[in-house]
Parts: sequence; structure tokens; C-alpha cells
Amino acid sequence: MEEGVRYPLGFKSSGVACGIKKGGKKDLALIYSEAPAVVAGVFTRNKVKAPPVVLDMERVKGGCCRAIVINSGNANACTGGRGMRDADTMSAVAARSLGIDKESVLVSSTGVIGAFLPMGRIKSYIPAAVDTLSPCGWGGAAEAIMTTDTRSKLAVEEGRIGGKTVRILGIAKGAGMIAPDMATMLAFIVTDMAIGKFALRSALKSAVDVSFNRITVDGDSSTNDTVLLLANGLAGNGKPGVKDGSFRVFKGMLERLCTRLAHMIVRDGEGATKFVEIEVGGARTESDAQRTARVIANSLLVKTAFFGEDANWGRIVAAVGRSGADIEPDKIGIYFDGVPVVRAGTATGKEGEVADIMKRKEIKLKVDLKLGKKSAVIWTTDLSYDYVRINASYRS
Amino acid sequence: MEEGVRYPLGFKSSGVACGIKKGGKKDLALIYSEAPAVVAGVFTRNKVKAPPVVLDMERVKGGCCRAIVINSGNANACTGGRGMRDADTMSAVAARSLGIDKESVLVSSTGVIGAFLPMGRIKSYIPAAVDTLSPCGWGGAAEAIMTTDTRSKLAVEEGRIGGKTVRILGIAKGAGMIAPDMATMLAFIVTDMAIGKFALRSALKSAVDVSFNRITVDGDSSTNDTVLLLANGLAGNGKPGVKDGSFRVFKGMLERLCTRLAHMIVRDGEGATKFVEIEVGGARTESDAQRTARVIANSLLVKTAFFGEDANWGRIVAAVGRSGADIEPDKIGIYFDGVPVVRAGTATGKEGEVADIMKRKEIKLKVDLKLGKKSAVIWTTDLSYDYVRINASYRS
Repeated sequence: MEEGVRYPLGFKSSGVACGIKKGGKKDLALIYSEAPAVVAGVFTRNKVKAPPVVLDMERVKGGCCRAIVINSGNANACTGGRGMRDADTMSAVAARSLGIDKESVLVSSTGVIGAFLPMGRIKSYIPAAVDTLSPCGWGGAAEAIMTTDTRSKLAVEEGRIGGKTVRILGIAKGAGMIAPDMATMLAFIVTDMAIGKFALRSALKSAVDVSFNRITVDGDSSTNDTVLLLANGLAGNGKPGVKDGSFRVFKGMLERLCTRLAHMIVRDGEGATKFVEIEVGGARTESDAQRTARVIANSLLVKTAFFGEDANWGRIVAAVGRSGADIEPDKIGIYFDGVPVVRAGTATGKEGEVADIMKRKEIKLKVDLKLGKKSAVIWTTDLSYDYVRINASYRS
Repeated sequence: MEEGVRYPLGFKSSGVACGIKKGGKKDLALIYSEAPAVVAGVFTRNKVKAPPVVLDMERVKGGCCRAIVINSGNANACTGGRGMRDADTMSAVAARSLGIDKESVLVSSTGVIGAFLPMGRIKSYIPAAVDTLSPCGWGGAAEAIMTTDTRSKLAVEEGRIGGKTVRILGIAKGAGMIAPDMATMLAFIVTDMAIGKFALRSALKSAVDVSFNRITVDGDSSTNDTVLLLANGLAGNGKPGVKDGSFRVFKGMLERLCTRLAHMIVRDGEGATKFVEIEVGGARTESDAQRTARVIANSLLVKTAFFGEDANWGRIVAAVGRSGADIEPDKIGIYFDGVPVVRAGTATGKEGEVADIMKRKEIKLKVDLKLGKKSAVIWTTDLSYDYVRINASYRS
């Protein structure tokens, strides 16, 4: 929660415990807009899409949404026809309880793959989620969507658009299965901005591209990744076109919000002890820059070296070499927080100086390919014993 | 060492300690052929190639080789012009000591990247390696090429070709940085087979493709990967053409030898507690089958699930879905040692039965895409605490 910040007008939310997760933890969240809202969504590119994703992709096409119902602890993935029926039922029960049309309700699930949802529990607790809806319910909702996250993730941005105050609020969950390409996480964002469907989609797509698509914890992507953005117009600004200055202001606010949430996801990555920003510069193309940054970020040898606080630049060079990007080995420069350890492909002898930098909790790794002017940034974590522990025992 | 097996005629080898590795461990190996040998090589596809790889790629073109000198503990990679001169000097010193031409000596290095070779030690110990050359020196040589390997790796194949006994012997090192695509390891293979340069290259290429290119420990590939094959003809068989039956016999022997060495590398993968064979069948194309098997094999979530002895097939399905291969989620079948946990994309309820299988040290995972007739096999390991420990502290 952020002190002194107000939430977007006309949205309510709640989080309750319905017994999917053990120990009475919250596992059912509800988000509701008092006014009809336009909606945009970005979904996993994994070819195996969970039923709630399939349902949402279809309903988002309509462009309108009033509510989102989300459960954690069970992903309702690989559950076939019964999973599709369960997702639809979740939306129908929430719709009935809220007195709205089920087509205007979206559904998300996250957790274990391959088990059927305990529909009895979900059905009987949706009314409790409706009863506890509150304009200040975001903390509970953010908690209720967590799986192996250790902290709930919530961010708010506020700005002036067309003489009106506009607010954007987002909650997210991440932890494991975090990889680029619309990555392996859930985020639900609401705003009181008045904006058309087309402009909203355009803003979301570009914000996701520079935030959630630039983070990776373990290179795995999931069956359930979803980012939903609802805009109910209650701020009362005039709707901007995509070429208007006020659209650019909104897009900037949304990018900042998504980037803040994306960084929270990385910082809370499973077992993470370091937050690492990897910037690849001097690339011939942006695709080369991105590809190289991602191969470095996902290299187990690089990740374990960060965990061991070892400036093992040889592993970085090896990752650059196998990235498939256009490179010239004897041009590469490598910098940790600005200190060069490699110049023109060979060691600078500054490893002593870098040893202290490696003890920091946040480290910027810069790789300069010295071939062109394109660059890209990816945020990632180290790989620790705890990552292995968490993922070797997740289901037990 | 294998009891009662004889080594290929006319080869000698040795392994000595020259002080690159700590604790007096062997770190300098020499392989020598009494007769001129034809040579074939396969090298890393990483764009960052270490000086010894660059040198060997050039010299192998000539097609002849008499000796290979190898050091462990230092990869002589990212060492620029001085690294190239050091590699050349290593070959020249060995050549002088053996009384042969330096162009017929190949060089390999493995270990830490980015440090210059301690040439004083190497130069002064090469004569000791020459002095201790022996037809039975293979155990010492296999030891001297180890880095984080816990066991030396040696295999011998014997067969009758053209009425003569032909033997192939190979030593290898692996452990970390093991990935497909002519992967991140060293192997030195010698045979007394009489065979032409072209046929030898063809046999090596196809053997590597079904063995060393089908293993992965951590998806990383190195700057130094090298497989060299020397054939000195002393078995006295007639040289076969690539369409002769005796060529097929030789190729089969070589494939078996390379597969045995490849399996040894996986079994001794850094921190490995499981040996996992991943077969993807029912694919539309072989490329789809291979790609899917590799994405599964390199998934951190799948690897940690194997370490946790958890038949977490949801992670396998998610990996299949993001592989980029042509798939239909509701057709997929998944089997652990033949027991189906998923059929037609949904759970079979046999997870209890599979729980016991997951405790085995060797597990066959089969994924049936049910779309076509192509298949591929990849061998890999789980991901354990020890992988992280070894790689977080490798240089310290």
C-alpha cells in the first residue's frame, strides 16, 4: 500500500480464502467496476493455453468487461472440456452474484497444472468475495493471487490528463515460470481513464513489450499468463486518439506502472538474491541486442555465478557467442556497474575492483558489442539453492 | 579401464601434473600416434572460439595428425593474440620433444576462461608427458583432461572389419556447460582402422550427431568444444568407401563408442542425481521432435521436478507448448518408464503409480505428440543443489 495515494474511481476489489491453498491463505480475488469498462488483454504465447485464457481471449474481443474473478493454487490448465466448463461456471456464478451478464466477467487461474478446480468451494465463496468488495480491497486481492510469491505486488500511478486526475492501479503475481514473451505471470490493471478500445489495446501492447516482456527468472513460460487492463472512464477526461499528447501521457504512466510491477516480480523471483539489469548495447539490430541479453539472462552458468558473487565474465562471453547474434569476439566490452572487466574481448585486470560490486544486491551488467547502435535491456535474477528447493518441492 | 580389452595399435598416451590445477592433480595429457594418422574434427559452433579451437580447425583441414596435447584447468579462451601464440607454442614444444612437425600436432585446453596459460609450467612438463607415453597410458590421459568431472571417461569398441580386428578408443570430459549442438565438451578418439580422410569425416559427423549432440546438462555451450578422431591404419584392413558394408560396421562402432561417452558425460553432469532419457515421438517433423525434446530437457522447472522426484507433468506440457513445435494440446500423451500420466492432454490418474518410478536413478520420459511419425531422443540430468553449489563456487 502506498500512503496518500488514491485509487482509480469506481473500482472495487476483494480477496478471500476459499480453501484451495492450505493454511487459510487468501486464494480467491474479485475485481469489479461500477461502470462498464473497456478492456484490453495480452495472453501467453504458449501453445498450451489453460481454459481461463481461452475463455478470456474470446471475451476480450467484445471489448467490454465489468469484473474479473481469479483463483490461485490451481491453474485449471490441461483440464480439457471440464476445465472449460469450470471457467465458464466461475464467471457465471460471479455474474449472478454481482447482477451482471456473464459475458462481461473474465476469469484467471494460477497454480498447479492438471488438477480440476474444486468448484464446490469456489462457487460457495464467490458470494463472500462479492460481499467484501471495497474500494480499498486491493491489498487483499493482491494477496489472493499469489502462489510462490513471498510478497504481494501492487502499484499506483497518478497523472493529469485533459485537466482531470487519472489513476492507474495494478496488482501482479510472478515468482516462477517467468520468461519473456508475455511472460508467465498475471497482472490486473484498472484505470479511471476515459479511452477507446483501440487506443487502450495499443497502450497495453507497448507497455507490456517494455516491461513484462523484458523480465526472466528461469526461461520457462506458462499456460496461464494474462495481463488485463480495464478502463471505466470515470476520471471524466476527453477520450484521446492515439496521436494525441494526452494518449502519450497515459501510455507513459502505464509503462511506468508495468515496469514497476515487472521489477517487483523479478525481485521476488523464486530464490532470488540479486536483481540484475542486463543491457546489451552496440548491436547491429535490436533483435540481436534482445536475443543476446536473453541468452545471458537465462544462462544457468551466468546466473549461478551471480549467486556466487563471481564476476565470471568468461561465462558471459560464452553466452554471447552462442546467442546467434552478429558479434565479433575481439570487440566485446563487459562492464559491471560501469567498471570494465573486458575490453576488446580480453581481460582488463580489474576483477579485484569488480569483486566488491558483485556483493551488491542490485547489479547492472553491460555488454557492448561495438558493432552498431542498437541496445536492449532485460531484468533477471541469480539462481540460488532456494530456486531448486522451491521447485523441487512445489507440489508436496 | 575395461578388463581384457586391447587398445588400438600404435597409439600411446600419458597424463602428468604440471601445476595448473591445485593439489597435484594431473592436468596435462598427450596422445601420440607412432604412424601418421588421418584426422577428423568437430568443433564448437559458439562464435567465440578459443585459440586452440581456431588452431585445430585450421590444422585439421590438412587431414593428418601425429599428436594431441591437452591441458585442463585453463581454457586459453578470450586470450586474444597472446592466446593464439600460446596455443602454437604448446604444439611446437610437443612437436620438438616428439621429433615431429608442429603442423601435425593439435592442441586442446579446458577450464577457466580469460586467463593466460602458465606457459612456463606447460613448456617444462611437456617433455615429462613425452617421457611417460605408454600404450596403456589412457587412464592417466583421461584423468588429466578432467575439470569438474568426478570420474574419468574412457570407452573402447572392438570389431572385425575386412578380416582384421579394429579397435576404437575414446576419452572424454564433460560435467558443466553441456548442451546440444556439438556441445561443450572434449573427446579424443583414436582407432587403428585404415580409412580415408573423407570417410573418416563422414563417420565422425554422423556419430557426433546421434551422441554428443543429443545431450544437455544446462543448455550452455562453450568456447572450447572439440571432438578429434585419429585413424592410423595399423589394423591393416582395406580402406572402405562410404558405401561399403565395412564402412557401416565402422560407423556403427563409432556411434556406439560416442554414445557411451556421451552417456558418461550426462551421468557425471554437475550435481546430477538422475539420468533422464527424453523421447519425443509422434512429431510431424524430426526438427519438431528434437526441438521439443531439447526444450523439455533444458527446462529448469522440469529439471528441478526430477530432482524433487515429482512427476510434475504440467511443467512438461508447458515446455512442449512453448517449444515452437507443431502440437495439439489435446492429443499429447506423457509416459514415465512406460506408465501413462497424460493421455489426450489430460491426467490419467496414475500419478500414484508413477511416484515410485520417480525414485529411480534412470528414468525414461516419453512424450507422444500423436501428430506424425518422427521422433528424437535427448539425454539429460536433473538440476540439484549441487549444480548450484559447483557453479557458484567454481573459480574460488
